[in-house]
Amino acid sequence: MKIALDAMGSDAHPVPDVSGAVLAAREYGVTVILVGDENKIKPELAKHDTRGLDLPIVHTPTAIAMTDHVDAVKSKKDSSMNLAVKLVREKQADAFVTAGNTGAAMAAAIAGPYLLGRIKGIKRPALTTTIPTATGRTLLLDIGANTEVKPEYLYQFALMGSIYVEKVWGLTRPRIGLLSNGEEEGKGPQVVRDAYALLKQSKLNFVGNAEGRDIPKGTMDVIVCDGYVGNVAIKLSESLAKTLVGFIKDEIKKRPLAMLGALLAKPAVDALRARLDPSEVGGGILLGVDGVVIIGHGSSDAKAIKNAIRVAKEAVEGNIVELIRSGVTETGI
Amino acid sequence: MKIALDAMGSDAHPVPDVSGAVLAAREYGVTVILVGDENKIKPELAKHDTRGLDLPIVHTPTAIAMTDHVDAVKSKKDSSMNLAVKLVREKQADAFVTAGNTGAAMAAAIAGPYLLGRIKGIKRPALTTTIPTATGRTLLLDIGANTEVKPEYLYQFALMGSIYVEKVWGLTRPRIGLLSNGEEEGKGPQVVRDAYALLKQSKLNFVGNAEGRDIPKGTMDVIVCDGYVGNVAIKLSESLAKTLVGFIKDEIKKRPLAMLGALLAKPAVDALRARLDPSEVGGGILLGVDGVVIIGHGSSDAKAIKNAIRVAKEAVEGNIVELIRSGVTETGI
Repeated sequence: MKIALDAMGSDAHPVPDVSGAVLAAREYGVTVILVGDENKIKPELAKHDTRGLDLPIVHTPTAIAMTDHVDAVKSKKDSSMNLAVKLVREKQADAFVTAGNTGAAMAAAIAGPYLLGRIKGIKRPALTTTIPTATGRTLLLDIGANTEVKPEYLYQFALMGSIYVEKVWGLTRPRIGLLSNGEEEGKGPQVVRDAYALLKQSKLNFVGNAEGRDIPKGTMDVIVCDGYVGNVAIKLSESLAKTLVGFIKDEIKKRPLAMLGALLAKPAVDALRARLDPSEVGGGILLGVDGVVIIGHGSSDAKAIKNAIRVAKEAVEGNIVELIRSGVTETGI
Repeated sequence: MKIALDAMGSDAHPVPDVSGAVLAAREYGVTVILVGDENKIKPELAKHDTRGLDLPIVHTPTAIAMTDHVDAVKSKKDSSMNLAVKLVREKQADAFVTAGNTGAAMAAAIAGPYLLGRIKGIKRPALTTTIPTATGRTLLLDIGANTEVKPEYLYQFALMGSIYVEKVWGLTRPRIGLLSNGEEEGKGPQVVRDAYALLKQSKLNFVGNAEGRDIPKGTMDVIVCDGYVGNVAIKLSESLAKTLVGFIKDEIKKRPLAMLGALLAKPAVDALRARLDPSEVGGGILLGVDGVVIIGHGSSDAKAIKNAIRVAKEAVEGNIVELIRSGVTETGI
């Protein structure tokens, strides 16, 4: 299996990108094609023991910055992001992974010069994220590809999410929730109420409306929403966890005995941190495009990049693109 | 000052409602009119020392349940909620406070048989909540009165929120944010982009888009959004805080030394709990109605009811209804 990695993606590129590629090549036995500036990639690769690993470089001096507008996908035609997508388009790679500019990465896959395009029948691709919950994990989508949706988009997000967690996470009859502002049918904006009707009559295991409180609870396997509210929810979650940790640190620092207590409790806190560690998640799949596209956080470290490559590998092995293709044909919505 | 309290509001009514009223009457020197079933209220009142306090009862046997549809406001015309609103309408009370069914409480104020109605010029009232932040607190609105909005509604939410935190919280030139899925102008659904333009040209101290991460940060004093995303955000916040506490408890229980540590750190954790205690907030004001309406959480305890009455008293003293009335006339939107 070959993964095309945008080696110029993360905030600290190419350091975590290259290190993550090395870790992934070793752990998963995959080829990772490093796309980017070889003058920066080669010295970084030289720091690692890469004997027996397949880590070819596709050189390009151009990269899309985090601060670039999504239009950079068109103006920077030979950027590492575009060339990595091109490898997938030309079947020289099985998947595209980046920790770069999210908007640009989606644009590269959907509308760039080497676009993969949408799977036939899919109206809008959706970006996903995996939320650690009290009992496991929940797939939330869309988290930013579509700020405005129609009922049938939400239905298709549910369909794609259901196929993904069934095939890649191995869940049977995944429980699908629709994000609303109340659990009863009839709650929410018109688009949500209309999507409720579509989901209710579908073959999916639709369990009804999800409320904001259901997102971290783990009572649903997939929660669908528009990319505006999904983006707010995910950024709020990240920030709130940090704020709470900050609050508790403040209070502990005021109290010498509490400081000793915190020292003793540190292994438990570290375990919590590991459980919530975004680098364990790695990256979210962009569902609905005709190819495997995984987008990670700009702040990714080597472990996050490695895990994003793992997510790509699982999606390729799960044959997720073909399953969505046949799933959407069957349902006809 | 006279506060009309729906004594049948909270989940455990009338116990916390009556106790909270007694605490408020003593601490703030206000009259609290207890509206509800006197056969339940009187025995509860008898448990307290109420000498010197003014706690009259307005009897009605009917109450709206948490599980009732909002239409109950019309079918249960003589419910405690409606009669408490009626006292405000007839100027026999200065404010209405309830910890009951949120949808019904809003309906009672806006569309019930004794409705207070909207302030002239206000297109839609908005329900607020106060979020404890890293540096203080932020007013978030709307959190559920309007699942669908227009740009001018969002502008008016900002105007009302700005007036409220300026006059009631005492902030100068409060910083107003517009919830979106990116900080740059041009991010978000069309309605948000159009509201951005309105806010930018207004006299408000509009600081731009807020992202989900800004909600707990305290970098803005007021954040406006539609009631759908606001409701998701607030329920997610409450749930996530609980989930994180559950996670850390799990990890601590696995480790004897960590358990000792947690014991030593307990005062710090208690301080954090106090800082985040929803009963300190008490209730959120429904801005835009022609009268002071405060809606608390169904799970309110006596302290929460007391604080909801305090929020009502502050709004009456801040003359918030008249200030919004003149504010909306001035701006003409």
